[in-house]
Amino acid sequence: MGNFDKIVNLCKNRGIIFQGSDIYDGLANTWDYGPVGVELKNNIKRTWWKKFVQESANSFGVDADILMHPKVWEASGHVEGFNDPKIDCKNCKTRYGADHLIEDFSKDKVNADIMSFAEMEQYIAEHKVPCPKCGKSNWTNIKTFNMMFSTSRGLTDENQNLIYLRPETAQGEFVNFLNVQRSMRAKLPFGIAQIGKAFRNEVTPGNFTFRTIEFEQMEHQWFCKPEDSMNFYEEFKQKAVDYLVSIGFKRENLRYHDHDKLAFYAKAACDVYYNFPIGWKELNGVHHRGDWDLSRHQEFSGKSMIYTDPFTNEKYIPNVIEYSIGADRLTLAVLCEAYDEEKLPDGDTRVVLHFHPAIAPYKVAILPLQKNLGDKAREVYNALAKNFMVTYDDAGSIGKRYRRQDEIGTPMCITIDFDTLNDNTVTIRDRDTMEQIRLNINGLKDYISKKIEY
Amino acid sequence: MGNFDKIVNLCKNRGIIFQGSDIYDGLANTWDYGPVGVELKNNIKRTWWKKFVQESANSFGVDADILMHPKVWEASGHVEGFNDPKIDCKNCKTRYGADHLIEDFSKDKVNADIMSFAEMEQYIAEHKVPCPKCGKSNWTNIKTFNMMFSTSRGLTDENQNLIYLRPETAQGEFVNFLNVQRSMRAKLPFGIAQIGKAFRNEVTPGNFTFRTIEFEQMEHQWFCKPEDSMNFYEEFKQKAVDYLVSIGFKRENLRYHDHDKLAFYAKAACDVYYNFPIGWKELNGVHHRGDWDLSRHQEFSGKSMIYTDPFTNEKYIPNVIEYSIGADRLTLAVLCEAYDEEKLPDGDTRVVLHFHPAIAPYKVAILPLQKNLGDKAREVYNALAKNFMVTYDDAGSIGKRYRRQDEIGTPMCITIDFDTLNDNTVTIRDRDTMEQIRLNINGLKDYISKKIEY
Repeated sequence: MGNFDKIVNLCKNRGIIFQGSDIYDGLANTWDYGPVGVELKNNIKRTWWKKFVQESANSFGVDADILMHPKVWEASGHVEGFNDPKIDCKNCKTRYGADHLIEDFSKDKVNADIMSFAEMEQYIAEHKVPCPKCGKSNWTNIKTFNMMFSTSRGLTDENQNLIYLRPETAQGEFVNFLNVQRSMRAKLPFGIAQIGKAFRNEVTPGNFTFRTIEFEQMEHQWFCKPEDSMNFYEEFKQKAVDYLVSIGFKRENLRYHDHDKLAFYAKAACDVYYNFPIGWKELNGVHHRGDWDLSRHQEFSGKSMIYTDPFTNEKYIPNVIEYSIGADRLTLAVLCEAYDEEKLPDGDTRVVLHFHPAIAPYKVAILPLQKNLGDKAREVYNALAKNFMVTYDDAGSIGKRYRRQDEIGTPMCITIDFDTLNDNTVTIRDRDTMEQIRLNINGLKDYISKKIEY
Repeated sequence: MGNFDKIVNLCKNRGIIFQGSDIYDGLANTWDYGPVGVELKNNIKRTWWKKFVQESANSFGVDADILMHPKVWEASGHVEGFNDPKIDCKNCKTRYGADHLIEDFSKDKVNADIMSFAEMEQYIAEHKVPCPKCGKSNWTNIKTFNMMFSTSRGLTDENQNLIYLRPETAQGEFVNFLNVQRSMRAKLPFGIAQIGKAFRNEVTPGNFTFRTIEFEQMEHQWFCKPEDSMNFYEEFKQKAVDYLVSIGFKRENLRYHDHDKLAFYAKAACDVYYNFPIGWKELNGVHHRGDWDLSRHQEFSGKSMIYTDPFTNEKYIPNVIEYSIGADRLTLAVLCEAYDEEKLPDGDTRVVLHFHPAIAPYKVAILPLQKNLGDKAREVYNALAKNFMVTYDDAGSIGKRYRRQDEIGTPMCITIDFDTLNDNTVTIRDRDTMEQIRLNINGLKDYISKKIEY
C-alpha cells in the first residue's frame, strides 16, 4: 500500500477525516473532519490568519456570506464562463472532466485549464488518452456544464430568484473593497483576507480531500497601485512559500510553476506545487489580476472603484495580487509532509506525524502510568486544559499509548507516576526524539507554551 | 433613534458588519463581517470551543460538510416536516411566515413553533392580527413551504441528484456518532461539538443579524445513558447561562423560557432568552431529544446505534441533550450587551463597546502622539502583533483616536510619546475606566496577556 492510501486509512481510524455522510455510504467527494482533524485544520487556519492578517500591518479580514447577489457572478464572469468541459467514454459511459483527464494522463505536465475545447479534443485524440476505467479511447465531444451549484431564494410562488453557492471566496473581498476602505480608513496598498467555504459541482473530483465539491479557501487580495504591482506579485510568491516553510514544509518539496498561458486580463500567474505522494500537484496560486475584478464590479454595480491617492491626487482602479490556498488541500499536504514510518531500535516500526507543534491537534497527552494515579493525572489534565488542547489516555501499556499519540502527532506526552505524588514532577517525552526529561508540574505551562510557539 | 438602530449603524461605519453584496444593493438577509466583526465573531467562537471542547474532558469536535446525503434529511424529518407556514396579506400581497407574524404580534408571548396550522389560523382570526405593512387583517389560508435550500449534484445529464444545504448542523454530529466513538474509543457519556454554517429559506427573516437565511451554529450534543439524561439536561441549562456570563453578559439580562409544548419525541426543552433592545428574544436552546435522532438514523441507515456499556453490558440507544446557539445571533447579543453611551466629565458623550477583553476584536491600539514618533510606534506594533491583534492609528487628535477605539471596544490604548524614546516606557489607557498608567515596553506582553485571559 502506498503512503497516500496509508494516510487515508490513518485519517479514518484516528479521527482525522471521515467520509462525509458515512453511515449512508457517503456522499461522493464530501469529507468530514473528526475530533483530531478539526483541531489540525483550525490550527492551520490560525497560523495562516496570524501570518496574513494579524502580523500584516495593512491587511484586514472579512467573512462574507456564501450566498451572494446573482449579479456578483455575472460581473465575475462565472455565469457565462465557469464551465466544466465534460467528456464521456462511449464504451463504458463514464463521465470525466476533460481537463482532469488530460492533466492526469500527462502527469500534470499539461495545464488544461488554459486550453480551448478544440485543443483539448485534439490532445485527447493525438495522445489516444485511454479511459481510466475501461482502457478504451473512444470519446464523445466535449460538452460544457456550469460548475456553480444553484438554488432558489423563494420569496413568493411567483418570484423565485436563482442564486448560487459561491464557487470561490474572492468575490467576497472584491465586493467589500469599498466598505473596508471606507470603514477602516484604509490607504493603498492594503489587503483583504478571508477564510471561507466555496462549492464546485465538478464532474470528477477525487483523490481524498485533494479535490472536493465543498472546500474551504484562504485568500488574500492585495490592492495596490498599478506601477507597484509586479513587485508585490514577486513578494507574495515569496510569502506563499515562506508561510509553508514556517509551518513545517521542507523547501525541496515545494516548487513554483509559472502558468504558460494567462487569462486575458492577468499580467502574471504562478502556482506553488507540492510533492504529494500522488505526484507534484498544485497547492496554492499567486495571480496578478490587474484591475479586472474591480473594473467589472464597477461596470455591473455602477459604483466607482476609482481610488484617489491622498498624497499625489492620482486616480486609478487598484490592481489586485491574489494569493489563494485551499485549507483542506493544505491540511492534506500537511498530513503527507508530516507522515513518517520509523524503524525503532527494537526492530518495531512506528508511524508518526511530525507536525509543527503549533498545528498539532493535541499539544500534550496525559498518561497515568497506572489507573490508581488517575486523580493526580486528572488534576494535571484539568490545569493544562485551561490553556491547551490536551488529551488523556489510561488504556493499555505505556508503549501502546505512545504509539497512539505518535500517530496523531501529539508533540509531548506527560506520564504521571508514583514519584509525581511525592515530588510533583512528571516525565515529558518528545514525539520526534523520543527523549524524556523530568519537569516540575509548576513549570509545565511555560515549557509547553515555548514548545508550541509560532 | 433607538439603541438597536444605533448599533446597526455603528456596525456599518466601524467595519463590524456590512449588508451582504452591498454594492449590488444587498441580497436580503445576508450580512458580511468586516475587519472588526470577523475578529469579534472568531473570538466568540474560540471562547465557546474552549469552554465546550477544550476544557470539557469528554467532548470531541467535528467539522462536517454542509452538503450531506439526502437520506440524512429524510431520517431527520426535514424533508417531510421542515415547513414554513406562509400566509399572504390579501390586501397588499405581502407574504409572511405565519409563526413570526403571531410571535411578533404577541411580543413573543406565544410560541407559534408548536402550534398547528389550524391553531395559527384561529389565533390570527381571533386576534384580528393586522398586516405589519398595510394594517389590514385580511389573510389567505396558511400554505406550507419547505425551508431547505435545495440544489442538484449533477453527475450526468440523466442523473441529477437533489441535495440540500443543511438547515441545521446537528445532523453532522449524529451521523458521525459511530465514527467518533470508534476512532476516539469514547465511552458514554460523551459530547460531540460543531461550529458551522446552516441555511434556511425563510420567508420573513429580519432584525439585522438576528434572523438570517445563512447563519453559523455552535452546537454540542451530549450522548448519555437514558437514566442520567435529566441530570445532564439540567447541567447544560446551567452551563449555557454560565458560558454567557463568562463572556460578559449580566445575569439579569438572561432568563430561561421553558417550552410549554414539546415535540413528540422530546422529554424537555428550554431556551435562554436575552434582553435585546428589540425585546426579550431567544438566544440559545437546550433540548432533551431522547433517543429520537440516533433511532431514526439507525432505521434509515441500517447501522446499529446501540451502545454496549463496557462495565454493565447493558445495551441501549443513547439519549441526546442538545445545546445549540447561533454564532451570529450571539455576536449581535454581545454587541447589544457591550454597547453604552457615557456622559463624560467635559459634557461630551462617548460611545463605547465594553467587550470582555478576550473577545474584543483588537486587544491594543498603538497611538503615536506625533507622526515623527512613527518608527518607535511601528516597532512596538510589530513586536505586539506577534502575539495579539493590534491596530495602529496616527490620524487626528489623541482624543478622537481614543473615541474611535472605544467605539470598536479596544480594551487598551498605548500612546507613544517623547519619553518613550528616552526611557522605553509607554502610557496604557484602560477603555472602561479611562485611567492611564505608565509601563515599560518589555512588560507589555505579560500585562496584555493577563488582561485578556479567559
